[in-house]
Amino acid sequence: MNDQPAPDLEARLRQIGAERYHDKHPFHRLLHSGGCTPDQVRAWVINRYYYQSRIPMKDAAFMSRVEDPALRRAWRSRIEDHDGTAEQEGGIRRWLRLARGVGLDPDYVASTQGVLPATRFAVDAYVRYVRDQPLLQAVAASLTELFAPAIHEERIAGLLRHYDFANADTVSYFRHRLTEAPKDVAFGLSWVLEHATTPERADMAVAALVFKMDVLWAQLDALYAAYVTPALIPPGAWRPGEGMAR
Amino acid sequence: MNDQPAPDLEARLRQIGAERYHDKHPFHRLLHSGGCTPDQVRAWVINRYYYQSRIPMKDAAFMSRVEDPALRRAWRSRIEDHDGTAEQEGGIRRWLRLARGVGLDPDYVASTQGVLPATRFAVDAYVRYVRDQPLLQAVAASLTELFAPAIHEERIAGLLRHYDFANADTVSYFRHRLTEAPKDVAFGLSWVLEHATTPERADMAVAALVFKMDVLWAQLDALYAAYVTPALIPPGAWRPGEGMAR
Repeated sequence: MNDQPAPDLEARLRQIGAERYHDKHPFHRLLHSGGCTPDQVRAWVINRYYYQSRIPMKDAAFMSRVEDPALRRAWRSRIEDHDGTAEQEGGIRRWLRLARGVGLDPDYVASTQGVLPATRFAVDAYVRYVRDQPLLQAVAASLTELFAPAIHEERIAGLLRHYDFANADTVSYFRHRLTEAPKDVAFGLSWVLEHATTPERADMAVAALVFKMDVLWAQLDALYAAYVTPALIPPGAWRPGEGMAR
Repeated sequence: MNDQPAPDLEARLRQIGAERYHDKHPFHRLLHSGGCTPDQVRAWVINRYYYQSRIPMKDAAFMSRVEDPALRRAWRSRIEDHDGTAEQEGGIRRWLRLARGVGLDPDYVASTQGVLPATRFAVDAYVRYVRDQPLLQAVAASLTELFAPAIHEERIAGLLRHYDFANADTVSYFRHRLTEAPKDVAFGLSWVLEHATTPERADMAVAALVFKMDVLWAQLDALYAAYVTPALIPPGAWRPGEGMAR
């Protein structure tokens, strides 16, 4: 036990990203290289919407446990980024413009009908984790954002190069995340390094980031199993042709 | 069962206020009429701070359960009102200026040391209620704000008339609530009336408001028992002389 951050904690966290971040998942490789069919893109948009839509609930669950007004204030911008403000439409509406761009009815997507059960289980597990675990782990779990700008850059370029639906309007969600995620993660990383003051607490932060990597990866596994190869769509989940824009 | 709001629900809710709102508690009568000693005012400021400080956590707990981004957006301003924004210091800091005004160390008050256990139990019960109960009840519980402007008016006038510490700076918390509470409650009341579409749901809303009245009243009971007559301060709670500004 000591009162200094474990000197190698940041390196350990970055190593987890190098090994486990979902940029390495075959579904993303397929998506970014232009290999997805229109329906595979739609399945991704529908399922990933569920994750997006729960992020502000996750952040509110975090704030509901924070006694320090300054920390709540710092965290609140995450909810604003997703839900929007008087001036900014917010990430959720931007995602629904992507949905419209790939030919889906935004109301169908927003209803979260047709989302794969495995997507719900993974995402709901994340919200519950943030509600129940120590604050250190709740913050550390958010550090997947460390690795988000690289995947967003790759995605914007890949989508614009390979898909007809991709344009400034439909990729605007990702463009905004390029500036939002670094702001959030700079705060979150320094908070974790400051509060992981013992080897035990450093291990807790590492475990939390691994957990969150699993949450992201599991969503793509479910997508791949259901819609790529072999396509094995579970009962009740979205099927090609459903939920199209009228 | 029907699908219209019970026509008398608003009247029932207002009747609960007429019978149970804490403007009728002897502690408030004492406070507003100039009958409190400086230490009794301090005890009130210390204990009421605990309630103030948990309100944004309660509102975040509510938002963590709301799936509709529009409802979350509408609710978010409550957290901003208390925690502050770039432009507005927020209610918690205003309350700490009142603390300073009555001779307390704001850091002592913000530490929530010395808060009566009964205050904590009542307030924590409210946060838990909002986290666990149906959304209708969580919103209905907030409707004590229907009755807040009248008590704030009475309090501002009473404090300014009777106490040396009272001035525009120290009562600014209450002045801001005069405009914030009506905005919140207009939204909350119409939401409750819109969603209490059966007699059973109307009864749920009524029960929630009664619960919240109890939360407010119990805090004053504890204050009165500990600091007024007979003064019976429980172990660990604030004692006159502690936590004074340096």
